[in-house]
Amino acid sequence: FFSFWPPVRSGSARPSGFFAPSEGAMLPAGSFRDRLAFITGGGTGLGRAMTMVLSQLGARCVIASRKLDVLQETAGEISSQTGNQVHALQCDVRDPQAVARCVDQMVALSGLPDVIINNAAGNFICPTERLTPNGWRSVTDIVLNGTAFVTLELGKRLIQAQKGASFLAITTIYAESGSGFVVPSAAAKAGVEALYKSLAAEWGRYGHRFNIIQPGPIRTKGAFSRLDPTGTFEKSMIDRIPTGRLGKPAELANLAAYLSSDFASWMSGAVIRFDGGEYVSMAGEFNELRKVTPDQWKMLEAMIKGTKGS
Amino acid sequence: FFSFWPPVRSGSARPSGFFAPSEGAMLPAGSFRDRLAFITGGGTGLGRAMTMVLSQLGARCVIASRKLDVLQETAGEISSQTGNQVHALQCDVRDPQAVARCVDQMVALSGLPDVIINNAAGNFICPTERLTPNGWRSVTDIVLNGTAFVTLELGKRLIQAQKGASFLAITTIYAESGSGFVVPSAAAKAGVEALYKSLAAEWGRYGHRFNIIQPGPIRTKGAFSRLDPTGTFEKSMIDRIPTGRLGKPAELANLAAYLSSDFASWMSGAVIRFDGGEYVSMAGEFNELRKVTPDQWKMLEAMIKGTKGS
Amino acid sequence: FFSFWPPVRSGSARPSGFFAPSEGAMLPAGSFRDRLAFITGGGTGLGRAMTMVLSQLGARCVIASRKLDVLQETAGEISSQTGNQVHALQCDVRDPQAVARCVDQMVALSGLPDVIINNAAGNFICPTERLTPNGWRSVTDIVLNGTAFVTLELGKRLIQAQKGASFLAITTIYAESGSGFVVPSAAAKAGVEALYKSLAAEWGRYGHRFNIIQPGPIRTKGAFSRLDPTGTFEKSMIDRIPTGRLGKPAELANLAAYLSSDFASWMSGAVIRFDGGEYVSMAGEFNELRKVTPDQWKMLEAMIKGTKGS
Amino acid sequence: FFSFWPPVRSGSARPSGFFAPSEGAMLPAGSFRDRLAFITGGGTGLGRAMTMVLSQLGARCVIASRKLDVLQETAGEISSQTGNQVHALQCDVRDPQAVARCVDQMVALSGLPDVIINNAAGNFICPTERLTPNGWRSVTDIVLNGTAFVTLELGKRLIQAQKGASFLAITTIYAESGSGFVVPSAAAKAGVEALYKSLAAEWGRYGHRFNIIQPGPIRTKGAFSRLDPTGTFEKSMIDRIPTGRLGKPAELANLAAYLSSDFASWMSGAVIRFDGGEYVSMAGEFNELRKVTPDQWKMLEAMIKGTKGS
Ligand SMILES: NC(=O)c1ccc[n+]([C@@H]2O[C@H](COP(=O)([O-])OP(=O)(O)OC[C@H]3O[C@@H](n4cnc5c(N)ncnc54)[C@H](OP(=O)(O)O)[C@@H]3O)[C@@H](O)[C@H]2O)c1
Ligand SMILES: NC(=O)c1ccc[n+]([C@@H]2O[C@H](COP(=O)([O-])OP(=O)(O)OC[C@H]3O[C@@H](n4cnc5c(N)ncnc54)[C@H](OP(=O)(O)O)[C@@H]3O)[C@@H](O)[C@H]2O)c1
Ligand SMILES: NC(=O)c1ccc[n+]([C@@H]2O[C@H](COP(=O)([O-])OP(=O)(O)OC[C@H]3O[C@@H](n4cnc5c(N)ncnc54)[C@H](OP(=O)(O)O)[C@@H]3O)[C@@H](O)[C@H]2O)c1
Ligand SMILES: NC(=O)c1ccc[n+]([C@@H]2O[C@H](COP(=O)([O-])OP(=O)(O)OC[C@H]3O[C@@H](n4cnc5c(N)ncnc54)[C@H](OP(=O)(O)O)[C@@H]3O)[C@@H](O)[C@H]2O)c1
Repeated sequence: FFSFWPPVRSGSARPSGFFAPSEGAMLPAGSFRDRLAFITGGGTGLGRAMTMVLSQLGARCVIASRKLDVLQETAGEISSQTGNQVHALQCDVRDPQAVARCVDQMVALSGLPDVIINNAAGNFICPTERLTPNGWRSVTDIVLNGTAFVTLELGKRLIQAQKGASFLAITTIYAESGSGFVVPSAAAKAGVEALYKSLAAEWGRYGHRFNIIQPGPIRTKGAFSRLDPTGTFEKSMIDRIPTGRLGKPAELANLAAYLSSDFASWMSGAVIRFDGGEYVSMAGEFNELRKVTPDQWKMLEAMIKGTKGS
Repeated sequence: FFSFWPPVRSGSARPSGFFAPSEGAMLPAGSFRDRLAFITGGGTGLGRAMTMVLSQLGARCVIASRKLDVLQETAGEISSQTGNQVHALQCDVRDPQAVARCVDQMVALSGLPDVIINNAAGNFICPTERLTPNGWRSVTDIVLNGTAFVTLELGKRLIQAQKGASFLAITTIYAESGSGFVVPSAAAKAGVEALYKSLAAEWGRYGHRFNIIQPGPIRTKGAFSRLDPTGTFEKSMIDRIPTGRLGKPAELANLAAYLSSDFASWMSGAVIRFDGGEYVSMAGEFNELRKVTPDQWKMLEAMIKGTKGS
Repeated sequence: FFSFWPPVRSGSARPSGFFAPSEGAMLPAGSFRDRLAFITGGGTGLGRAMTMVLSQLGARCVIASRKLDVLQETAGEISSQTGNQVHALQCDVRDPQAVARCVDQMVALSGLPDVIINNAAGNFICPTERLTPNGWRSVTDIVLNGTAFVTLELGKRLIQAQKGASFLAITTIYAESGSGFVVPSAAAKAGVEALYKSLAAEWGRYGHRFNIIQPGPIRTKGAFSRLDPTGTFEKSMIDRIPTGRLGKPAELANLAAYLSSDFASWMSGAVIRFDGGEYVSMAGEFNELRKVTPDQWKMLEAMIKGTKGS
Repeated sequence: FFSFWPPVRSGSARPSGFFAPSEGAMLPAGSFRDRLAFITGGGTGLGRAMTMVLSQLGARCVIASRKLDVLQETAGEISSQTGNQVHALQCDVRDPQAVARCVDQMVALSGLPDVIINNAAGNFICPTERLTPNGWRSVTDIVLNGTAFVTLELGKRLIQAQKGASFLAITTIYAESGSGFVVPSAAAKAGVEALYKSLAAEWGRYGHRFNIIQPGPIRTKGAFSRLDPTGTFEKSMIDRIPTGRLGKPAELANLAAYLSSDFASWMSGAVIRFDGGEYVSMAGEFNELRKVTPDQWKMLEAMIKGTKGS
């Protein structure tokens, strides 16, 4: 059963140079010309990176979240770099009326969007027995209700206008498996995924596509300050990520741009894990054996071959 | 590749007698002696059926929901039949303070529970573009927040009391796939599943197990009046259910009793589809070919064999 | 967001007494009276435990695998204990003709079975780059082809005889996620799951149900000698299993008996993880935080609360 | 709960112009310059389309399958169109020695590949009770064993050469759910997915990435002649596909090129459904309600609102 192979590297050491990130824009220039993109949480982190790429590719963008000053700064920086308009609108997605007002403003400014990215979220690590009902709501109201309110408001208006659109939600690799210590986030993100898969089926007839990206760890101030405040967790994540590094915002942004573009016009209801392989690496029961050395494998093979019967 | 088999029945006709339900209690008598079970929505439908079986098996039960009169009637009927106490407590699970008061009352009456079943829910069919933010919340507040508030409140008290418990949530087969026309329910149930999988991992150390049943269609007044008000949908469900019938509340109750019992003390983090095979039947791309007759198959086989190349 | 709770146990220490196994038979006596059960690999390990419980509950059993002497010894022991017949038949499931002959013998002895359990398997740990094509086949031929040949042979005969049956396959928790170092087993078990889900949909019309149990680690000589020959892996498994122990064969056997019984006559197409919570514990990205102590949590909470902006 | 919305289109009618395919190459010119790609089944259908795009983007390609004449014709056509080399090698992937010889030839011609696409497959519709063991093997040997043999052979050589690579497998949307009437394909494709997820975890340390595309229906002669020989199934597929059309080979090829490119260097262990939304549309229990008209919805709403109690 075994072929005796020249000793190979064991442990997590990786020849350097594999898996280097490509951070330039991937799609053809102008892929989003005459398109309007609406990105929640577009002022910071991954939302900002997605806005940057869409803007580079020709989209006009509207970014919305609670902190208008942050949004305006980002909008100014991106539009001065790309030459395309970026609008900043204040909006707390937990409040359906604020969402409606925000959409009113967008429509007045630039019409209904072709691309919608639900990226706004809140999260923090906490043992669940220390969580209050308000702590629970502080996350689920943004992530699940916020996404629903934005999606309902825009969906209804787009349907009335008979305009198609691409919807994208940013969730997380633990939406399916669940995870302790980030439980409201796990529940709310799972809810977002079901919402989007449901609407992929239901609203295709109105010209709408719905897809999901589940990112693994990508350093942003927002996520890392609340999920790994001391920085100690990062090392153990990198150790178990088969590609041996965190993701880069620009990599995620290229994937998001693809999914939002006409090149993906047949993609709907998809859930795309983008995590350097972390999830499969954690979930597989015997992956811990990566720590076994070649010499130990020889010994194990001999023991196994020597086993008789069951 | 093909073996030429004597013609077999096609279509959905099934020899009668297959898959007859067994509705008697399955577990050994006394399996829940000295155990206290807390069942939300225990006054009606599936919750009532689960309460009945647990009570038959020796548990004291506390059932809780909004309608005290309905609960009291059920409690009276069950306890007079089984001889074991059933308490009725009013509780709107959407309100964390009401949940806390309800648990206070239960503790005063009979202590902390060994078995918790989160079964309360709301749902109705509706095209999503007709749904208001309040319509969204009317379902998600009960299903997701309600389950969370009950679980947090009981979990915290059990942890402090160093008492183990079995938690069970009743979700649905469309929690994973999503489904149009019941979108808030799909999202909220998916959230409940992630909550329970998360806590299965996190709270094992406190002696808690968390499992999930995803029922397929089982006739209850509550579910069917809001999901199939005209009764026309039922036939098409039965047609695609491989076991050719709806489930029975008593069948679900036996499964729930098993999962809540010591026989399942090693089961945690499990998600059990209980649907007569409906889900796999819908999801599989070629299952529609069940309509092809044996004669048509012979013709198709000949055509396929005649195909040359790709 | 945080409620300041009296310090709780951290780490993996668990108050003893939680999750103790119940190893007695669960179903009512006589549940399998007049039923015939066919169990591959029924001579050892989990197959033996399932045969024992079915026999206790009144079934006649036929057990089949390669080693006739082992089968005969098991058959003798079980039948002398339960008073019900257990037949031993030699059968290498990789060989379709041997399977056909084995079924011929069973039919001659006792007819066609009501309960079929595909439990035979092979597996061993090995870095995949050390695996030969023959090593690949040595596992996949037993697990995937063997299960298919047994299922096709029995399915065809049952269909012709218009007899219903319950089919059960024993797979593993890494069938869905995959796992390094047991790759042929992961692939073959995933194939078995798809086979069974497919037939749950297709063969319901013939009176057949198909379900799957995915066991986590349960000590048997066969599995552990080839998957953890030195015994060092076991400790790390127990550490991450939320219920803090391995499973017991008798626990799995009770679940298998339930699924094979009339109490589960509405269950088909289900995939039941039975693993003490191991899978969700491994898969959840932040579960490693179980190592954080209460004092460290206080510090982390303070850091997170102090974070401003994104 | 309901907002009374101006009547909307019902049924599956879709304003035309939504979801039009974009069939030009998506990635920047030269994305695969100096890269060698190995595509099994590259002579026809989707394999041919992927080869075309990779070649356009600068890759040298090696295509391999059983029919050398078909391969040579494709190779000639593509390379004359793109100006980049395309080699044709005969190889039956079921035979590990043939695979080894094929890799020897490739190495002699052009070295070890940077991109590997396991695309070769066989499939045909058939009621499973009509399937012989040879019929079972005719599909699983190509799909599962063939993919394994190619992956093991190339993996080992790449590891020895310390060369990184991107592996991609083409599976199907019914790999996870299973499907009747294409059962060997469902089982084998599920096996391929587990193989690739396993190696994503295990072989990251050698610089290898592994990803999966699950296509929905895309017209090719090979697939459609054996899965829908009469052409009657196609209409019902289009009806349930939310984007209202089949996919195009060039769309799949763009996705495959992205996953094989450096832009996706952080993507590993991903399973990407690419099916126009067909899967979620089939799987969601209430999606059939798309047939309800706006007037019927008004009536249903009234009935539901009139319901009292549970
Ligand atoms: N970074 C990662 O490793 C990672 C991994 C998995 C998933 N994700 C997901 O990626 C997305 C972006 O995260 P990130 O890492 O870029 O973190 P981030 O910079 O903190 O982004 C979160 C954004 O959400 C906005 N937001 C929060 N509450 C809001 C509300 N009530 N209304 C409107 N906007 C609100 C914030 O803006 P204001 O404060 O101005 O409102 C902020 O711009 C999130 O969905 C996150 O869950 C990230
Ligand atoms: N029957 C099926 O086919 C089916 C299929 C899949 C899943 N399920 C699930 O099975 C469970 C039981 O459903 P069922 O069919 O038995 O329907 P049901 O009789 O309507 O049960 C729902 C119960 O939830 C209670 N409830 C609703 N809102 C509540 C609130 N705010 N606080 C506390 N309790 C509340 C109701 O009692 P009050 O009105 O007194 O509050 C009622 O007893 C639900 O979780 C449902 O989603 C059922
Ligand atoms: N124990 C665990 O922790 C665990 C966890 C997950 C899954 N499982 C699964 O549980 C099942 C039972 O495993 P186990 O732990 O009980 O190990 P086991 O005792 O080694 O059982 C395997 C059985 O398969 C039979 N078998 C092997 N090759 C065969 C062939 N070619 N034809 C017919 N029978 C064959 C063996 O009998 P012969 O040698 O006589 O042929 C043996 O009785 C397997 O499917 C395994 O994958 C076990
Ligand atoms: N088209 C669809 O709608 C669809 C949907 C889901 C998945 N897929 C998948 O997409 C892939 C391509 O399918 P397709 O539609 O393009 O059909 P196709 O043209 O028939 O492609 C199959 C290819 O596999 C090759 N092949 C078959 N047996 C082989 C063997 N033993 N050794 C080496 N090569 C072999 C064939 O070439 P030779 O005959 O020369 O060997 C052929 O080029 C397959 O994996 C299929 O399962 C297709």
